[in-house]
Amino acid sequence: MKTTSQEIILTGDRATGPLHLGHYVGSLKQRVELQHTHQQSILVADMQGLTDNGNTPQRVADNVLGVVADYLAVGIDPDKTTICLQSGLPALTELSQFYANLVTVSRLERNPTVKSEIASKAFGRSVPAGFLCYPISQAADITAFDATLVPVGDDQLPMLEQTNEIVRRVNTICQNEVLIECKPLLTQTPRLPATCGKGKMSKSMGNAITLGASPKEIRSAVKSMYTDPNHLKVDDPGTVEGNVVFTYLDAFHPDKAVVEQLKTHYQRGGLGDGTTKQILEECLQELLTPIREKREAYLSDKAQLMTILREGTLQARENSQTVLRRVKAGFGLSHFEF
Amino acid sequence: MKTTSQEIILTGDRATGPLHLGHYVGSLKQRVELQHTHQQSILVADMQGLTDNGNTPQRVADNVLGVVADYLAVGIDPDKTTICLQSGLPALTELSQFYANLVTVSRLERNPTVKSEIASKAFGRSVPAGFLCYPISQAADITAFDATLVPVGDDQLPMLEQTNEIVRRVNTICQNEVLIECKPLLTQTPRLPATCGKGKMSKSMGNAITLGASPKEIRSAVKSMYTDPNHLKVDDPGTVEGNVVFTYLDAFHPDKAVVEQLKTHYQRGGLGDGTTKQILEECLQELLTPIREKREAYLSDKAQLMTILREGTLQARENSQTVLRRVKAGFGLSHFEF
Repeated sequence: MKTTSQEIILTGDRATGPLHLGHYVGSLKQRVELQHTHQQSILVADMQGLTDNGNTPQRVADNVLGVVADYLAVGIDPDKTTICLQSGLPALTELSQFYANLVTVSRLERNPTVKSEIASKAFGRSVPAGFLCYPISQAADITAFDATLVPVGDDQLPMLEQTNEIVRRVNTICQNEVLIECKPLLTQTPRLPATCGKGKMSKSMGNAITLGASPKEIRSAVKSMYTDPNHLKVDDPGTVEGNVVFTYLDAFHPDKAVVEQLKTHYQRGGLGDGTTKQILEECLQELLTPIREKREAYLSDKAQLMTILREGTLQARENSQTVLRRVKAGFGLSHFEF
Repeated sequence: MKTTSQEIILTGDRATGPLHLGHYVGSLKQRVELQHTHQQSILVADMQGLTDNGNTPQRVADNVLGVVADYLAVGIDPDKTTICLQSGLPALTELSQFYANLVTVSRLERNPTVKSEIASKAFGRSVPAGFLCYPISQAADITAFDATLVPVGDDQLPMLEQTNEIVRRVNTICQNEVLIECKPLLTQTPRLPATCGKGKMSKSMGNAITLGASPKEIRSAVKSMYTDPNHLKVDDPGTVEGNVVFTYLDAFHPDKAVVEQLKTHYQRGGLGDGTTKQILEECLQELLTPIREKREAYLSDKAQLMTILREGTLQARENSQTVLRRVKAGFGLSHFEF
């Protein structure tokens, strides 16, 4: 693998549904670029997907290969990027169990990311232990890959702080640099809103355009997109801020100058939502048609997907077992390896 | 392995210190008997030991082989009983991680055993996540061995309830009897008090007589034992209830009739603590001398202890991996085994 950076990148996605345009602009595009300059691994996070799907594991299982197909369809190259499955790496759960003794329950409860996710999922007092502990599992993921650079949105920064706290604690216990601290690689792209304009995209909320969306689904999603509710007639001046169609044009139209002209025209009046939506739809159809076709081709050969996933996982397994051995040796528990 | 019962027994000990007389009367003696009639496994629980020794893993590591030597010294036979090491069984941590998504944090916080242990360890709000979650790990231990019978004191019954709740939940999700419920085998022996008369024996509190105690340590421990603080002169009538010397005589003197005579004499007056202590000391020296000698012999050949532990662990690994495969298959995640 030819790389120009010493940094090791780990990213991943929960395998709870097909990936969508939010993932595409927020991380997938960046990963396709990073794979040429960095050593990069992508974790298909089925175990993490279970933390809020504990009673419906089949939902997670059913999405694993779809996520791998999404990666390949957007251009992630398994010869450049290690694509691996979380549940195929037992060292991750072993590291988690060690780390869980170094983190207090109240520290987990104070984690802002976990707090807001517990609130948004309306878990209340019924939060599963696995969910509360998922920052510990993420620390296991990151450290098991010796990752130094983790692409995240700024809402995820508390997770990396938690990881580095664990790293420092383990190194203090072992009196040795057994684990490596990581840095965030902050995503530049603002988060893509849901098509309804409220919150972030979510397949389960029906407000996301997936990478495998059919032409009809794309058309329908764009047609129903939230625009400016006060822009009643074509001639009325319209608002661009918070207008999802323009947010998407910013994100997906290849020609920034054209988007600026459209914005000016819309603000002045005389540009209808039908027209802006048609332009957006054309962009999205053009972007997604080849992705959808590749995705379908990959999904038609599940054995090949399994082979790719298996090879990546076996490669990641080697590294994660090495890190586990380092931690066990540092803890004085390495006499007992089997 | 010749057994006369279909029940499968799992027991174990935290590897946080050498075993003591409390373990001997409370469980070790029973295990020596049960190994002739049951399929029995004993787990050296180093991972569980870390749940309240996260920052001092060496303390746990240093005690592993001592605990194995304790087992062998009291007569546990590795040809009849599988002696295995928790950290050598990654399936246990993988099962724990699955189960953690099926148990809420508030359910763990309500567990009476965990509550009282958190109070007694003065963790307060600083309870490590691993400690709060240890009922989940115990469920993983028990189910990974397909254990049907778990010897416990009645203070541990809530742990088995938690295990069986998880078993039923997993079986419901899988729509199949993937896991087996367990029953308690209630320990008949009352808990042996600490030599100081307060609370239970604890090596770290310096109020326990370990199985490897030297003749001098045994003598000194018996001499300092709590008796009847109002029994000032030999001629005074003395109280037997709460008198640790008599509790120990009940537990360790081979002749119940002699103990009854001593009690009557003590209550009547005219029997000094010096005499009762001497009788007790003789019993304990007689019991512990061969155990100490065997223990030392075993500890002088660490390679042999490692071999015994390795063989037991590899045997347990096979079974625990089979159970893990059953759970993964039930959850629909078995396509992804590596």
